[in-house]
Amino acid sequence: MSKTIDFYFDFVSPYTFISFQQIKTIKFKQDFKFKLKPILLGGLHNLHKITAPAFVPAKARFMIRDCKMICEKYKISFKFNSYFPIKTVDLMRGFLIAEEDGIANEYIDKIFEALWISGLNLNDQTIIDKVLKNLDINPKTFALRLSNQNVKDELKKRTQEAFDKGIFGAPTFYINNKVFWGQDRLEYALAESLK
Amino acid sequence: MSKTIDFYFDFVSPYTFISFQQIKTIKFKQDFKFKLKPILLGGLHNLHKITAPAFVPAKARFMIRDCKMICEKYKISFKFNSYFPIKTVDLMRGFLIAEEDGIANEYIDKIFEALWISGLNLNDQTIIDKVLKNLDINPKTFALRLSNQNVKDELKKRTQEAFDKGIFGAPTFYINNKVFWGQDRLEYALAESLK
Repeated sequence: MSKTIDFYFDFVSPYTFISFQQIKTIKFKQDFKFKLKPILLGGLHNLHKITAPAFVPAKARFMIRDCKMICEKYKISFKFNSYFPIKTVDLMRGFLIAEEDGIANEYIDKIFEALWISGLNLNDQTIIDKVLKNLDINPKTFALRLSNQNVKDELKKRTQEAFDKGIFGAPTFYINNKVFWGQDRLEYALAESLK
Repeated sequence: MSKTIDFYFDFVSPYTFISFQQIKTIKFKQDFKFKLKPILLGGLHNLHKITAPAFVPAKARFMIRDCKMICEKYKISFKFNSYFPIKTVDLMRGFLIAEEDGIANEYIDKIFEALWISGLNLNDQTIIDKVLKNLDINPKTFALRLSNQNVKDELKKRTQEAFDKGIFGAPTFYINNKVFWGQDRLEYALAESLK
């Protein structure tokens, strides 16, 4: 029996979207188990003093083509979001609320889809509200819950916990106390989960 | 017929060593052509204001295990150099001299081997001199030529040229004006070379 792989994610990361789509296919086909681990990637980078690829122009240019290339290879629907980098802090806090309400899977699916398949501008609250309504979430109630200090603290806490485990980027697969960083390390994490 | 792939390298990078070993196997088996493109990775990172993984403790820890993992998968002899990061500026300038003398292939092979298979401390001039002697290079003459301003300028020039092409890391495969960054992008570069 395979062990559960912790999947650290932030919606902001296109490579994380790609591996999330791969995970969905894998879960469908085989007996691999994943646990969703929300973090704030910007906060994690700050803790490590890492400059995100989005802020190194040559890296950012490469990343756009690289993501498309990988998605062509794996036949994953993908559109590089032209509003990248999106501020995802509220979307990530929203995941914690979705978790509480038992709709975590639907939420992660729809937000990733909005960002990296539809390429929507989720910096725009009107557009976020539409996506939330499609999830049967009331945007007003949601906004109120987002502003709760406990929710803010919880995301910080989980990001700190990731940092403490040596996690420094997304996607990260974590299994048997080992960090597997990057979309192309999924296969190594799968192998590790069978050990 | 496949087009020539430019291979940007610096001895300091373990992932570059890994892809160099893969390239040797590929060249032996198939009709792919590579051109060796020496750069100073530290200089290139400075131009982009990139902090190398070696200087982000969590990344550096991951990299050691990650390299071993990849080498196990591809059955590549590998020892993470315990003196990492090695100062490679003279070793890279040395490549330019080896190029002039028509021994570039032997030189790159032996220096990579010393660093990433034998794990030698190439911060130590005595050990470098031994490696040079094994290449039938006279260490004294070599040291004199290394100190030549033209050689220093040439490495700077080549690093600047790489920067101007949008190259920001090593290994980079460059073909059809496209950057393919990272050991695990070799297969994409190979596919591109057949277009």
